Amino acid sequence: MLDTIKKSYLNINAIQKIVNKDLIEVNNIIINEIGTEVPLINDLSKHILASGGKRIRPIITLLTSSLCNYKGKNHLALAASVEFIHTATLLHDDVIDESKMRRGVATANDIFGNKTSVLVGDFLFSRAFELMVANSPIQVLEILSKASTTIAQGEVLQLSTINDCSTSKDMYMKIIKNKTASLFSAASEISAVLSKKEVQIQRALKKYGEKLGIAFQLVDDALDYTGTKTLGKKVGDDFKEGKMTLPAIISISQSNDKEKIFWKKAIENLDQSDSDFNKAIELINKYNGIETTIDMAKEYCIEAIQSLDIFPRSQTKLALESLAYIAINRQK
Amino acid sequence: MLDTIKKSYLNINAIQKIVNKDLIEVNNIIINEIGTEVPLINDLSKHILASGGKRIRPIITLLTSSLCNYKGKNHLALAASVEFIHTATLLHDDVIDESKMRRGVATANDIFGNKTSVLVGDFLFSRAFELMVANSPIQVLEILSKASTTIAQGEVLQLSTINDCSTSKDMYMKIIKNKTASLFSAASEISAVLSKKEVQIQRALKKYGEKLGIAFQLVDDALDYTGTKTLGKKVGDDFKEGKMTLPAIISISQSNDKEKIFWKKAIENLDQSDSDFNKAIELINKYNGIETTIDMAKEYCIEAIQSLDIFPRSQTKLALESLAYIAINRQK
Repeated sequence: MLDTIKKSYLNINAIQKIVNKDLIEVNNIIINEIGTEVPLINDLSKHILASGGKRIRPIITLLTSSLCNYKGKNHLALAASVEFIHTATLLHDDVIDESKMRRGVATANDIFGNKTSVLVGDFLFSRAFELMVANSPIQVLEILSKASTTIAQGEVLQLSTINDCSTSKDMYMKIIKNKTASLFSAASEISAVLSKKEVQIQRALKKYGEKLGIAFQLVDDALDYTGTKTLGKKVGDDFKEGKMTLPAIISISQSNDKEKIFWKKAIENLDQSDSDFNKAIELINKYNGIETTIDMAKEYCIEAIQSLDIFPRSQTKLALESLAYIAINRQK
Repeated sequence: MLDTIKKSYLNINAIQKIVNKDLIEVNNIIINEIGTEVPLINDLSKHILASGGKRIRPIITLLTSSLCNYKGKNHLALAASVEFIHTATLLHDDVIDESKMRRGVATANDIFGNKTSVLVGDFLFSRAFELMVANSPIQVLEILSKASTTIAQGEVLQLSTINDCSTSKDMYMKIIKNKTASLFSAASEISAVLSKKEVQIQRALKKYGEKLGIAFQLVDDALDYTGTKTLGKKVGDDFKEGKMTLPAIISISQSNDKEKIFWKKAIENLDQSDSDFNKAIELINKYNGIETTIDMAKEYCIEAIQSLDIFPRSQTKLALESLAYIAINRQK
């Protein structure tokens, strides 16, 4: 199935072009809404929101709205809200992870300090709600506020498994469904609600977002062991922080006693030498940790694409299918 | 006017008794809504929400709903939402301020760590929105989401004036209006909207909350220089952090050159010896910093009480008036 997509697939530039007019308006809303009387908010918001990012989540809202033939304007503010929620979680994530780089530039917490990042995250989060309240029927508000709660639950769950080598695959899947897939899913589902489509359409789009989000995070976690520095983040951060992601979980579950001692020392005690990251990659490869992770991501992408079967062929549908293809083929 | 209240005023126990039935239900909602599958969220939420606090903001929502003869049940969930928003900001505040004590017990960040506090704050904040979306007309959502944005703006503004001796009284007033009074104001205003009262009633309650909130924060900031340790917080924290509050602003604005050097060293460079807090109190007293702050608080309380003139006499009205009286007379 993914091979079928490969032949006709649209790259990210072609996808952005399809929603270009809407995306410009979304960017304008973003710029307008982060303007306040407080210079520090404006500076930090601009830093993180203007530093780009792929705007994947708003693009999903725009494409799915188009797929539902939505004729209104509210999807634009909602797409901006979704990006605000995402950005707020990034700001807080970077504080939690003590990250120094994101998207190839210094993180907000590195430049502006943790305190400002926490508070501007709160601001963006609140602004997201303000914006969606002004532009949504109650059901959309329910979906988005529930997604926000779910993200926070996923983040706390992740924090509670950090430095814990016994973290299971099931627990990992629960974490990424909560912290990542829930917002992808909401960004997609709200378009059906906004367009007053029947419940099957709503379910299909919800499923599309969820499966895509899971695939996206799986690939992200694989890239943390295989990516290059051009990705803009520092490869190896998960290992250094002792964050338990699928490649490590797969390897640890099959490790012999000596290897288990290595993982415990590195992940649980964070007692790591310079060569330990390469040693970790070696052990992950020994047990096919990356391959298995990417294979799983592919399965989720296929499910995401299949959930769109309910829609007739169109350029918009192809764009959504291509997003799934891109999710698993980026930076390889 | 405050003397008139003094004769008949209700103490906090008597006020709580008036709304006791509702308050029990609000507490039940709070307990139910913080229950998740994530043990760390439950533990931290229970720590901060069960450690008490006076529930002033939810009590305002309950009293004003009663004043408006509200007959529904939605005010209960909204009162819980308001407490969640407040608690989320407390959690993030304590991270920002690196506080170790609140309400006489160790802060959440001290026990659970900053990371957990940031994320559980996000959870409570999201849960607040989820809860209000399920229980509010759109106008209430507008008021509460705007209040949240305003709080965040106030917090960032405060952060940007920390360690800055040139912070003006106007800037200080703007900060406390945003970070504190906006939620008091929203907690009060929403009752009028929920009860579908005319716009004058809405405006009166909005004003009541705003003026009360300002008075409340002014007294809080005075107590940071005059309070006792039984207050549960550590007295002197504002000074130690270099936070610019009204007592210091008043003193600095009248200081001679030698005194200005003391303030700059202590507030801007945080270069403080053990005796410097007492020296600061001395300088504040020299320029009537506490008295002036409390006098201002009294004026705001009178305005709060006057804004209730539109309502006929009742035990509920007396309770709201008494809250203003309590605000300026606590811990003296």
